[in-house]
Amino acid sequence: MLIRVINPNTTASMTRSIGRAAERVAAPGVIVQAVNPGSGPASIESHYDEALAVPGIVEEIVAGDAEGVDGYVLACFGDPGLLAAREIAHGPVVGMAEAAMRTAAYLGRSFSVVTTLARTIGRAQDLAVQFGVAQACAGYHAIDLPVLEVDTDPATYASLLEACRRALAGDRSDVIVLGCAGFAGLAPTLQNDLGAPVVDGVAAGVATVRGLIDQGLSTSRVLEFARPPAKEYAGTLSRFAL
Amino acid sequence: MLIRVINPNTTASMTRSIGRAAERVAAPGVIVQAVNPGSGPASIESHYDEALAVPGIVEEIVAGDAEGVDGYVLACFGDPGLLAAREIAHGPVVGMAEAAMRTAAYLGRSFSVVTTLARTIGRAQDLAVQFGVAQACAGYHAIDLPVLEVDTDPATYASLLEACRRALAGDRSDVIVLGCAGFAGLAPTLQNDLGAPVVDGVAAGVATVRGLIDQGLSTSRVLEFARPPAKEYAGTLSRFAL
Amino acid sequence: MLIRVINPNTTASMTRSIGRAAERVAAPGVIVQAVNPGSGPASIESHYDEALAVPGIVEEIVAGDAEGVDGYVLACFGDPGLLAAREIAHGPVVGMAEAAMRTAAYLGRSFSVVTTLARTIGRAQDLAVQFGVAQACAGYHAIDLPVLEVDTDPATYASLLEACRRALAGDRSDVIVLGCAGFAGLAPTLQNDLGAPVVDGVAAGVATVRGLIDQGLSTSRVLEFARPPAKEYAGTLSRFAL
Amino acid sequence: MLIRVINPNTTASMTRSIGRAAERVAAPGVIVQAVNPGSGPASIESHYDEALAVPGIVEEIVAGDAEGVDGYVLACFGDPGLLAAREIAHGPVVGMAEAAMRTAAYLGRSFSVVTTLARTIGRAQDLAVQFGVAQACAGYHAIDLPVLEVDTDPATYASLLEACRRALAGDRSDVIVLGCAGFAGLAPTLQNDLGAPVVDGVAAGVATVRGLIDQGLSTSRVLEFARPPAKEYAGTLSRFAL
Amino acid sequence: MLIRVINPNTTASMTRSIGRAAERVAAPGVIVQAVNPGSGPASIESHYDEALAVPGIVEEIVAGDAEGVDGYVLACFGDPGLLAAREIAHGPVVGMAEAAMRTAAYLGRSFSVVTTLARTIGRAQDLAVQFGVAQACAGYHAIDLPVLEVDTDPATYASLLEACRRALAGDRSDVIVLGCAGFAGLAPTLQNDLGAPVVDGVAAGVATVRGLIDQGLSTSRVLEFARPPAKEYAGTLSRFAL
Amino acid sequence: MLIRVINPNTTASMTRSIGRAAERVAAPGVIVQAVNPGSGPASIESHYDEALAVPGIVEEIVAGDAEGVDGYVLACFGDPGLLAAREIAHGPVVGMAEAAMRTAAYLGRSFSVVTTLARTIGRAQDLAVQFGVAQACAGYHAIDLPVLEVDTDPATYASLLEACRRALAGDRSDVIVLGCAGFAGLAPTLQNDLGAPVVDGVAAGVATVRGLIDQGLSTSRVLEFARPPAKEYAGTLSRFAL
Repeated sequence: MLIRVINPNTTASMTRSIGRAAERVAAPGVIVQAVNPGSGPASIESHYDEALAVPGIVEEIVAGDAEGVDGYVLACFGDPGLLAAREIAHGPVVGMAEAAMRTAAYLGRSFSVVTTLARTIGRAQDLAVQFGVAQACAGYHAIDLPVLEVDTDPATYASLLEACRRALAGDRSDVIVLGCAGFAGLAPTLQNDLGAPVVDGVAAGVATVRGLIDQGLSTSRVLEFARPPAKEYAGTLSRFAL
Repeated sequence: MLIRVINPNTTASMTRSIGRAAERVAAPGVIVQAVNPGSGPASIESHYDEALAVPGIVEEIVAGDAEGVDGYVLACFGDPGLLAAREIAHGPVVGMAEAAMRTAAYLGRSFSVVTTLARTIGRAQDLAVQFGVAQACAGYHAIDLPVLEVDTDPATYASLLEACRRALAGDRSDVIVLGCAGFAGLAPTLQNDLGAPVVDGVAAGVATVRGLIDQGLSTSRVLEFARPPAKEYAGTLSRFAL
Repeated sequence: MLIRVINPNTTASMTRSIGRAAERVAAPGVIVQAVNPGSGPASIESHYDEALAVPGIVEEIVAGDAEGVDGYVLACFGDPGLLAAREIAHGPVVGMAEAAMRTAAYLGRSFSVVTTLARTIGRAQDLAVQFGVAQACAGYHAIDLPVLEVDTDPATYASLLEACRRALAGDRSDVIVLGCAGFAGLAPTLQNDLGAPVVDGVAAGVATVRGLIDQGLSTSRVLEFARPPAKEYAGTLSRFAL
Repeated sequence: MLIRVINPNTTASMTRSIGRAAERVAAPGVIVQAVNPGSGPASIESHYDEALAVPGIVEEIVAGDAEGVDGYVLACFGDPGLLAAREIAHGPVVGMAEAAMRTAAYLGRSFSVVTTLARTIGRAQDLAVQFGVAQACAGYHAIDLPVLEVDTDPATYASLLEACRRALAGDRSDVIVLGCAGFAGLAPTLQNDLGAPVVDGVAAGVATVRGLIDQGLSTSRVLEFARPPAKEYAGTLSRFAL
Repeated sequence: MLIRVINPNTTASMTRSIGRAAERVAAPGVIVQAVNPGSGPASIESHYDEALAVPGIVEEIVAGDAEGVDGYVLACFGDPGLLAAREIAHGPVVGMAEAAMRTAAYLGRSFSVVTTLARTIGRAQDLAVQFGVAQACAGYHAIDLPVLEVDTDPATYASLLEACRRALAGDRSDVIVLGCAGFAGLAPTLQNDLGAPVVDGVAAGVATVRGLIDQGLSTSRVLEFARPPAKEYAGTLSRFAL
Repeated sequence: MLIRVINPNTTASMTRSIGRAAERVAAPGVIVQAVNPGSGPASIESHYDEALAVPGIVEEIVAGDAEGVDGYVLACFGDPGLLAAREIAHGPVVGMAEAAMRTAAYLGRSFSVVTTLARTIGRAQDLAVQFGVAQACAGYHAIDLPVLEVDTDPATYASLLEACRRALAGDRSDVIVLGCAGFAGLAPTLQNDLGAPVVDGVAAGVATVRGLIDQGLSTSRVLEFARPPAKEYAGTLSRFAL
């Protein structure tokens, strides 16, 4: 089984870190490949970045399908282009926010999301509504750190741990959901230090898509997610014509 | 990894059929054991049956924990006793309705539930609200067949297939969710005949709990799902004192 | 008119206190009997206790129906087994949480629930959704006292009064709903001291079921709440076969 | 105990019929008086009628308070002026739609509303949201008969019975809620003919307000429903200055 | 184009101030007239005032239709009588709360309402639900000032500015909605001082109704908002018979 | 005042038709320019097309801001890239679905959406939730016509009229919302033939953004919609670095 984890930004060091987190849930017979597009934003911190990451994601899916990929994980907590990806990918596609928040729902009544920048909380709220977990999400918290400083800033872990503690107590919640792919590697240590479940969406996404493939399930082609009608694409985007 | 699938009714032939469906998603290193309690209803077709299936489920969890079970699946579409089971089981517990409906949400916008008796639809609606998938559930349909006749009635498959076809068309939905553990073995054939994803909650439950275990996740003990306070139990239920 | 108030735990002193609260709203021609099962938990403080209280409730309903009871009140704020009870009881069945929260809705825009243990708040939230009062419930508050210490702890009243005051002010709510049958006797004094309506679900339940009986109304048998299909019950639960 | 049932329209024959329905649930020691204002619409069939019925209702409450009335029922399914009435009445105030729809919720999962004119369905939907029963209301049905012809048209009963039958079957609902005070007298016969519970809001309102009074409960004066600030009223409405 | 802005209270100085705020968005060819009824409450600060303002509003609409008014704005944040007004007015009718809250939704994810008296917040919450903006409304705040002191109290602006600042920060919201027609003139200065959009419902209402008229749109007469059935009105309200 | 209406697809004939519809609501002093990007899909009929239309929209906004555009309308019923557009545009941005559905809410209780392809209904439902009008939307209907055949197929009007008639009757709705920019020119004739309000989102969008500009309102920069953080964009998308 071949699972492709797409980091939708173009920062290779983050892709490697995502790959390591994904490996944690790879089982015998499961190959996980972490990739990122060649074009697009270096990090995703706004609706603008989110939208402009989608062409790169599409290219990674088209390439993955050509290589026989069985299923995809989108490794950015905004789940950019998720519905478009489902229309075109051959196998199932799982967003990391979707997987993280639904996974958390199996572990308690409510969860708190802890993320990087406060301006991205609105997007997480929209996704929580879309995924039916708005009621279960007890609070959204930001540690005010740019995405690309997560890896390099040595104070990240302490700051994140403190934010998680405050979130659990202040929200009276049961579970922490990490709201950035950059946090993926920190989940096990955090869970240990907090004494509460910590869900990393990269691992949750890989576990979920693996389960779908094992069940023989993929995106329904009955109606909304049938292959898009073929048509002309003009100008610099002409390569995207299906 | 040892996963126990609990059929909450006392009909052994149904337990065996559930076990076969569960095996479909067992992976290398995963042992799935299908069990049923020694006391309780022969089938679950009412709120009354649902409630009185819980003592038997509790006994199967206590026994499972003693045997080192890593995680549980409740194999009845009413997810009886799910929250109580979470409080006492050592590992994660997943209900088959919960797993089926959340799994369906990865495959399209909406799903239709097809079940046995119309009187159980209310329970499914309550669960859909609890699991955050009420919006995604486009309709509930019953084929008006008692649970224990599913296996023995040769007309079941034709009737079920027809109900699924009508559900997809009438609800304009993307996915079928099978609303009875008795249907578990029929999912692959149905999916083939319908040309649309068919989710069986037994397989979905096993895949989900396996994924949780692989991620190192279990029920949060922070607040609501901490171990229940110890206390006296009187009379014929005294063996349930924790 | 004969109304049976079922205390679902097995502590007789609590049953007597519930009986006294129920008497407050008995009218000429209305006989209220407070009972508790012989088997089950000594108090209800978890989903586990809640679930295992149901067999005892069922026995009290079967016995009550044999005695000609006209209607039932379930006197535990978790309303355990409410839907199962409706299926089998001859007359109407009202849960105390259901009655308390709906009664509060006639008295103002919003109410605050004050209960014993924080771990039971999740159950109250689920019930608020089920009963359509989630929007009206402005907050849930716990005084962190085990149920069986409510009667014996002389500091209970002061602690409860203080929690109610904080709830009204902090939630900007209009009404207090007492979230434990053990508090039933304290409602009139609390209302007096707070200067705001205080709803005790035992009294609210008796008033509500009496009103249903006076209107000639009982549970609909049209579909979901028709009598459960007869079937075999195995093992130690065989006496529950209908 | 003195309960005043206010028919908000000015048609005396309808007031008498409402009075008879209210008497059905009067108990020993309970006096029910049915009244109507001297000014306002002859029937209530629009938002316009609804709004212009309120001054008359206010006058009936002011007069009732002067006579020592203990509680009020508003006997029009639109519950006109309910919140204003709560602000000024000394005792509790219950709307008939509010009482009917909440009462129905004790009897099954869902109910169907059957009313006179289709144009009033929107108002009923707004009330269902306000009272937290929108989820429980499975459908709204109109028999297309002006309110004042209900009493005089001999075909009313047959037409209503037929509409109730279609509603129960088509909505898969458990209970009928009668959506017009003009139907009040027909509830017992309808219930008998349908074999399903039929809730008349006049009786439900009287039973509810009686229960509130017995519990010593009335509208909270803490915040929103404190007595309105005194002020000048100009012109033809100057008598309404508090 | 002739737009009538109805101040539903009888205080002429407030009508003039509303008129000035309305003028801010009048365009070439648009005449805005601000009026108030001759009878009714001097200010609107309760459900009672709200209800008794409606007869005066009706009179202003009947008079306006006779003068050829093209559309109406109701200039009180409780939108009193909005649905009744729609039934009878010839052109479109827009409430100022409705327009303000929907306008705010174009400017960010969430808004905070800042109003005069805390007791009116419940009404604003009801309207937010009715208009579909409950999710977008992040908080309601009161400055505890009677409506008629807004103009005369020199400390109003400072107090309002401070409340808006606290609302934006505490609610993490994007936009301020002014919750009283008395605040209308202060919006531009507040917006300047806050550095965040401030929506005044009088201006929003005029802009909205002007847009509807330009599009050739008015209230649908298909069903609920068809002209009310003609009928007798008794007593002092007889002039309201249609 | 300069308003730019962006047709997000690259079909110039559709842009011209949208421009004509927009002109209908241009007032004295308002210049409306209809444009389309040079690169991207020829029509928008899937999530895939929707996502890949965003780079073109971004380019049109950057160009518009350079020309001094005061506000934008996105003229595709999927409102592609709306939140990203709000982050970067200098003035307010209004989506045509957003404007159409909110405008319809002023005209009655409920509306029906009539669109081209059934597969786009899911997107409209997501938007209805996002804009708070899900409750008001009574139904979604498709005429099964590719977007680019709307103009050329002579049977379009008859088919659309018939679908609108069925929608109003079957949904018991008050208003039609046209769910495709290609229908914009047909609104006045449809409204005339149906005898019910017909809202075209292009006109509604222009009227709305004009109103915002007249009120001095634009997107809040307080938090989520502040200008995105500057960063590197790699590869073929490097021109999108802010």
